[in-house]
Amino acid sequence: MKTLGYYNGTIGEIDQMMVPMNDRACVFGDGVYDATLAANHKIYGMDEHVDRFFNSAALLEIPMPCTKPELKQLLRDLVKKVDSPDQFVYFQVTRGTAMRNHSFPEGKANLWVMLTPRKLTPIDKQVKLITVEDNRFYLCNIKTLNLIPSVLASQKATLAGCDEAVFHRGDRVTECAHSNISILKDGVFRTAPLDRLILPGTARKRLLEACAQLGIPAVEEAFTLSELFDADEVIVSSSGSLCQQAVEIDGKPVGGRDGERLRALQKVVLGRFEAETCPDA
Amino acid sequence: MKTLGYYNGTIGEIDQMMVPMNDRACVFGDGVYDATLAANHKIYGMDEHVDRFFNSAALLEIPMPCTKPELKQLLRDLVKKVDSPDQFVYFQVTRGTAMRNHSFPEGKANLWVMLTPRKLTPIDKQVKLITVEDNRFYLCNIKTLNLIPSVLASQKATLAGCDEAVFHRGDRVTECAHSNISILKDGVFRTAPLDRLILPGTARKRLLEACAQLGIPAVEEAFTLSELFDADEVIVSSSGSLCQQAVEIDGKPVGGRDGERLRALQKVVLGRFEAETCPDA
Repeated sequence: MKTLGYYNGTIGEIDQMMVPMNDRACVFGDGVYDATLAANHKIYGMDEHVDRFFNSAALLEIPMPCTKPELKQLLRDLVKKVDSPDQFVYFQVTRGTAMRNHSFPEGKANLWVMLTPRKLTPIDKQVKLITVEDNRFYLCNIKTLNLIPSVLASQKATLAGCDEAVFHRGDRVTECAHSNISILKDGVFRTAPLDRLILPGTARKRLLEACAQLGIPAVEEAFTLSELFDADEVIVSSSGSLCQQAVEIDGKPVGGRDGERLRALQKVVLGRFEAETCPDA
Repeated sequence: MKTLGYYNGTIGEIDQMMVPMNDRACVFGDGVYDATLAANHKIYGMDEHVDRFFNSAALLEIPMPCTKPELKQLLRDLVKKVDSPDQFVYFQVTRGTAMRNHSFPEGKANLWVMLTPRKLTPIDKQVKLITVEDNRFYLCNIKTLNLIPSVLASQKATLAGCDEAVFHRGDRVTECAHSNISILKDGVFRTAPLDRLILPGTARKRLLEACAQLGIPAVEEAFTLSELFDADEVIVSSSGSLCQQAVEIDGKPVGGRDGERLRALQKVVLGRFEAETCPDA
């Protein structure tokens, strides 16, 4: 298969797959998702992504229709059905199918999977960013399907010829539209703390682990827009990009002053990606 | 037909209707909607709802796949196909069908309609409310499909045996999970101003028009939780309920001290509903 769509046990090419009109995704965006990459038909960071997925569902009180081991086995099996060894592995659960009514319905939640060909972004790809006022809700720690603010910010970045949008609440930088953001300053790695303003990124977590391994001091403290522009390096992280160097924000050059630490971090996180997704992993 | 689902020209009973898995509603909640009632197969407040619908779409930069007159004619035709003369008339537009990518896709937006049997809530039905901290995004003036906070608040109200949840940002009352809220105090009608914290409710607008007609002074000024609890009357309004008297909030009795003005307002808005939806309207 070129792509794979899965919905409650039914499988097909994504552009051929249909879902019920009154799945609660369709009218409320009432669900949560998670996503990672596969390479060599092996899923990267499976345990962490499945753990976060179940945690997101629990925070919205969506009862999962399967266990963690069942989901992992399903994903491993589905990934093998797609021709491309490199894939974007996306899965979501929605709060059932019912006539539209805000309160929770009876019945089981729906499990969705979408697999599409995609390679890891080259680790040395430099990115350009724009800044956007963060107008999102206070549930950003949950990976929900309520993504209109991220859609609008991403489109703004695209129109500006940039790769990502950095959200800020007033002066405080939170995260990007679909990545976390961190800085290096005076040899210290700094990233926003885990609260309801940012997603607990798995790539962010791995960067913190890489700092520990390399002896780079790391602090989980919010930083401001001026600290962002004044950073020695600006790092954008997600499971699809791991650890990218940002070189421009709102058209102004940023970072580029601590390439050695940046490259050391990139080497560690890329090494873990390659180890987890090597053909005999 | 018992119910009617419409998707880009295809029609069926809602629970038989299927939509593409990669409609952007499914993964981003990337769309807007509007809704009203029909009685005697006549749609109530059609012009205002269609105007607001197009305005919501424009604010999210979703190009409409039809004109306003085309949509009105479609809705008038579809409503006639459903057996029940009394219906909930729901319609939404989503930002096209495409492989998941945050930025806007090429191609046309998708038009959805869902019609289900529903009568106007009796105007003299009294309601009970709970209060919930407003954690929503700053796009509440747009009627989007990103409704998880309203879903959670509604469920909390249901579990508490109540009819609606009142959102407040700190001390400031904003609106309910799926209605606006207003008060009567010392003979004055007071409702929050139109900003990005509340939806420009059509029932709210008709209440302001009723005040003008009856000579009741009206102000569009936010009120606090303590002003809510201290009001002479608390009024919950939506196109499905018009003007409901709230009698209890968080288990404490409220209002009930200006029944004469309340009933005068109810009489005016109910009169307009009946005039617009009478069989030969």
